Amino acid sequence: MISENLLKQIEFIKEIDKIKYIKRRTKLFNSDRNENDAEHSWHLAMMALVLSDYSDGDIDLLKVIKMVLIHDIVEIDAGDIFIYDQNKNHDNTEEELKAAQRIFGILPEKQAAEFIEIWNEFEAGISNEAKFAKSMDRLEPLLQNTSNKGGTWKEFGVDYQTVHDKKKVIKHGSKELWDYTEKLLDDSVEKGILKK
Amino acid sequence: MISENLLKQIEFIKEIDKIKYIKRRTKLFNSDRNENDAEHSWHLAMMALVLSDYSDGDIDLLKVIKMVLIHDIVEIDAGDIFIYDQNKNHDNTEEELKAAQRIFGILPEKQAAEFIEIWNEFEAGISNEAKFAKSMDRLEPLLQNTSNKGGTWKEFGVDYQTVHDKKKVIKHGSKELWDYTEKLLDDSVEKGILKK
Repeated sequence: MISENLLKQIEFIKEIDKIKYIKRRTKLFNSDRNENDAEHSWHLAMMALVLSDYSDGDIDLLKVIKMVLIHDIVEIDAGDIFIYDQNKNHDNTEEELKAAQRIFGILPEKQAAEFIEIWNEFEAGISNEAKFAKSMDRLEPLLQNTSNKGGTWKEFGVDYQTVHDKKKVIKHGSKELWDYTEKLLDDSVEKGILKK
Repeated sequence: MISENLLKQIEFIKEIDKIKYIKRRTKLFNSDRNENDAEHSWHLAMMALVLSDYSDGDIDLLKVIKMVLIHDIVEIDAGDIFIYDQNKNHDNTEEELKAAQRIFGILPEKQAAEFIEIWNEFEAGISNEAKFAKSMDRLEPLLQNTSNKGGTWKEFGVDYQTVHDKKKVIKHGSKELWDYTEKLLDDSVEKGILKK
């Protein structure tokens, strides 16, 4: 007999396959192929593994990794919202909350509650883990854009100040990674791939 | 001043982007689009999170997740070897070892050693963490093939006994997931998507 719980978990594992079809605006490194949400989430988890020592606050690394692995699952229902979209709020929309409840709700009750809690904690951005996870989420597309001669900054005409404002989130996770970010942004202006 | 270590880590983060181009034989769920190694690794990490309670041995979940996140990075140099390929050994080739040394070797020395050790531990398949990580690696394509009317089994004419032998790895990680596996294989024979 296969347990009811296992069947629910397998259903969830199948459902989340759909994030592999959700395209981000950002392109892969040195590429013009759009990244999808599964690839993005894997890359953030790898970055968290590699860069965890730079977190200013003490962190539970497993929790950070859980956050980055699941943070975009809601986009299966809610879609990806471009960070520089001026008409739509990027964070924590009604739609995303409903998506979290539906998708994580496929899991057995206790596990569903645990996943929703981790997702909410990430979205709130207050705990050390959420701060560090969010700095990974902001750092990856910055590295991609600099490798792509400006990438989405060029494509959508986003200027230095706007990028700088959005990237400040990195500072809350790690001062050292923020110093590096500011250097990359200055270099980008100098190279003419980000307009001031 | 940006530290030497951080620069090495950023170089590694850029290098591993290449696994997004490495295609597996297996297709996404209910799909004929091949899965790539980044998507596969993300999915295994999610499965480990969701299914960790089924591990028969005590496991350090963070270590399992590290294993599944990095296990295919060597394929950047060594390529993906199809599990049912009769001419090439699937596991731990000379080529993969060299790849591990080159790619993880981009990282600062101590971190490189740590990553190579985790990769070796996974490949050896002896620790509880490696056993469970390997059962995730075998379970995902099984779920995909059953959702794809036989998938690679049909495509490459692989029979029940061969699949059963390869999937036995799951038994070493979890008896309950093995019972489920055997049920899925029996169902597949009954449905005519796996020949006995």
